[in-house]
Amino acid sequence: MPQKTCRVELVASTPDPMAVIYAAFRQCYHAGFVGDMHTKLVDGEIPAEKQAAFIRKVMESGHASPIEHVSFTFAIEGVSRALTHQLVRHRIASYSQQSQRYVDGSNFDYILPPAFAKISEAKARFEKFLDEVGDAYQELKKILEDNGRGEKAKEDARFVLPQATESKIVVTMNCRSLINFFEHRCCTRAQWEIREMANQMLEICRKELPCVFEDAGARCEKLKYCPEGEKFTCGRYPLP
Amino acid sequence: MPQKTCRVELVASTPDPMAVIYAAFRQCYHAGFVGDMHTKLVDGEIPAEKQAAFIRKVMESGHASPIEHVSFTFAIEGVSRALTHQLVRHRIASYSQQSQRYVDGSNFDYILPPAFAKISEAKARFEKFLDEVGDAYQELKKILEDNGRGEKAKEDARFVLPQATESKIVVTMNCRSLINFFEHRCCTRAQWEIREMANQMLEICRKELPCVFEDAGARCEKLKYCPEGEKFTCGRYPLP
Amino acid sequence: MPQKTCRVELVASTPDPMAVIYAAFRQCYHAGFVGDMHTKLVDGEIPAEKQAAFIRKVMESGHASPIEHVSFTFAIEGVSRALTHQLVRHRIASYSQQSQRYVDGSNFDYILPPAFAKISEAKARFEKFLDEVGDAYQELKKILEDNGRGEKAKEDARFVLPQATESKIVVTMNCRSLINFFEHRCCTRAQWEIREMANQMLEICRKELPCVFEDAGARCEKLKYCPEGEKFTCGRYPLP
Amino acid sequence: MPQKTCRVELVASTPDPMAVIYAAFRQCYHAGFVGDMHTKLVDGEIPAEKQAAFIRKVMESGHASPIEHVSFTFAIEGVSRALTHQLVRHRIASYSQQSQRYVDGSNFDYILPPAFAKISEAKARFEKFLDEVGDAYQELKKILEDNGRGEKAKEDARFVLPQATESKIVVTMNCRSLINFFEHRCCTRAQWEIREMANQMLEICRKELPCVFEDAGARCEKLKYCPEGEKFTCGRYPLP
Repeated sequence: MPQKTCRVELVASTPDPMAVIYAAFRQCYHAGFVGDMHTKLVDGEIPAEKQAAFIRKVMESGHASPIEHVSFTFAIEGVSRALTHQLVRHRIASYSQQSQRYVDGSNFDYILPPAFAKISEAKARFEKFLDEVGDAYQELKKILEDNGRGEKAKEDARFVLPQATESKIVVTMNCRSLINFFEHRCCTRAQWEIREMANQMLEICRKELPCVFEDAGARCEKLKYCPEGEKFTCGRYPLP
Repeated sequence: MPQKTCRVELVASTPDPMAVIYAAFRQCYHAGFVGDMHTKLVDGEIPAEKQAAFIRKVMESGHASPIEHVSFTFAIEGVSRALTHQLVRHRIASYSQQSQRYVDGSNFDYILPPAFAKISEAKARFEKFLDEVGDAYQELKKILEDNGRGEKAKEDARFVLPQATESKIVVTMNCRSLINFFEHRCCTRAQWEIREMANQMLEICRKELPCVFEDAGARCEKLKYCPEGEKFTCGRYPLP
Repeated sequence: MPQKTCRVELVASTPDPMAVIYAAFRQCYHAGFVGDMHTKLVDGEIPAEKQAAFIRKVMESGHASPIEHVSFTFAIEGVSRALTHQLVRHRIASYSQQSQRYVDGSNFDYILPPAFAKISEAKARFEKFLDEVGDAYQELKKILEDNGRGEKAKEDARFVLPQATESKIVVTMNCRSLINFFEHRCCTRAQWEIREMANQMLEICRKELPCVFEDAGARCEKLKYCPEGEKFTCGRYPLP
Repeated sequence: MPQKTCRVELVASTPDPMAVIYAAFRQCYHAGFVGDMHTKLVDGEIPAEKQAAFIRKVMESGHASPIEHVSFTFAIEGVSRALTHQLVRHRIASYSQQSQRYVDGSNFDYILPPAFAKISEAKARFEKFLDEVGDAYQELKKILEDNGRGEKAKEDARFVLPQATESKIVVTMNCRSLINFFEHRCCTRAQWEIREMANQMLEICRKELPCVFEDAGARCEKLKYCPEGEKFTCGRYPLP
């Protein structure tokens, strides 16, 4: 039962994303056909700087739909089921998640909360507990198999697996959905683990497509105030 | 830590659902305005039988969008986090779920898989394990509180809570999304727990709006063959 | 070919909407089951004032998902195809629209832009044009019918129908989607016709569910500045 | 006012689409991390034939969510507003459409229905009508400008533009949404124009990703019967 930490790999993204977004924005206001313009954009006839400046300007006015044409696909491992249950609540996205019904959990990996890592007493108690989980899973699986549940034994044995259990998931989101995701999950109010993952995703997006993601992040970054209210604010920005 | 079983309560649904669907279907092909027709529908000027027959007929041809105008809102308790993680994967829906970050888990309720219930050895092992979870949660929460984590102690302690932990959730889906939900989750290939919940929801829907839901259920019910393939079929219907 | 003006009829909405939203919000943070609480809410054990205050407070912090459980269904007539083409771009919604393929357009109704109504020369030119459309539609339909197109004659003849042609549509949106709709379509930058329709819808929503919709409208109303940029701002609020 | 015909250009699509889908499918049932596997897939360590066979098999069982990770972006011109109004009803998609509010329509292009093209009398009547539209647009625009409507003159003048008016649009859909789109729009019951466009899109998709799209098309192609009912069936397949 080794401990795992979050790792985010970019496995695919729309090629020439800036040209795609620029072309889509332009199509709205332009008499010509961007199917013809597109090659010129990729070939650099319209300088990248000009494309980026145009995209920034239109996005500032809040007209974000053309950035939906560009998607990012991430493979993510080293995250807990507590995290993935929050993640899949984002509905404008596609997910393929490792199934606990089909993948054996006898030697499950786990996520160690930083608060446990810092307090040796907590870490020891947590690890003792994880050993007990491993025993319970294996014993229950064996009892079920001995009683003829066969392949279904894993489906029921997993009822003992904790929220800390590591999961793996493939996620695709378009840029607009990603910006919304970052607004909620890069906020210090978000759970520490999903915030860490969101920050890794944001770093990748910023590198791949700075004109869209350079200002992305928690809502306060753009608003310059905290919308979370007196009770929940982290204090980084003032209340409105 | 009492055991809980699935309970589904209908807390809201679109009033006069048949009239709404009939009016929406009619608007597509009708020169008049259904804003005027609607009152007549509810008052019964067009007999319910005629409305139902019309809806059945158009649905059979696969043109399902007008049934989207009608939604059902269910409050659900007595389901595991294993179930809710599957449930929220259905994206054309709205969810409000009890948060383990904010609600104390010291005396969490749990779901007992029927396979455990039937085998006394499995049940005993499972319940012994649940006692250990309760101890681990409370001890970890206390250690964290003693070390100044305050309100955040629950957020981390919940990493020990098992998939079996009971959750509560409010779910709204429109009829078209519900039919898709039933196709996947009433199938015997679905996990036993979500199938049981889906069947309870389907029973309610059938009672409220028979002309839409009388044939709903696993895909095989309509296809009259099993699309799940040789490896997974339950045998109730032949393979194609 | 009579002129028509926009009429919005509320044909259905979720009953006891405030209780549904309050219960959904509460379920997130509450140990109990709102399936039980719901009856009390409707019966008034928790005063409406308290429910409304709670909903306002949580919405202010930007956590809007529970308002999705409540939907409104409008039947709308007296709007142009120019309007409906914009309307159906809102994707978190359900639509049933009168089909020009199936409904005869020989005596189509039309929408008169206010700018035409104010200038008698424009009005006269527009109405002369509409007579020509009617002639073209009927002549083309007859030619096609004479040449054996039968039922399909309408499908092709409608190619002459102008954007001004009146349409009828049934629309269902949940509260969250409605708020987004109002942000974009109540803005003075929106086309005059869809703004007028959006304002009618907003008036209905405000009457039905004030605690959710009292501050709804163009984005500037909440931001207290105009996000549309120097070129497009109407000047009602200052630029940021 | 030249006549235009439908042209579909693929401007972007997810690179190595088969590897992305294979990896996503595998992640569901596999203990390892597909973030590592992905490079091997692209490098050909797992033969393309094997990947394709696996994808075909899982899709046959109806489990289609992993194909959502792959998207196609098309730039489309030479289609009527009648077509685009139908197209944008597909909600799991992203659109950027040429705006009639901002792009001058004085010399609008148009789509000629094949039924008009075949009948010289219809063609002549249609073209005479289009000349009248051009006159009406330009005269109304001028009257409005003379009366101080400025930039807004186009917004109102377009009320005369017919459904036949050519439009341009950029569309992104993922594979799952595309398959649903083809089911509805490659059917002979669909309007001739959108069917022609759908067939062009399908041809591109089949070339790019045969294992996903080789069986795509109207629903009858898979069902081997026609689900459209007695009144609407084209007769290519028998009724059920």
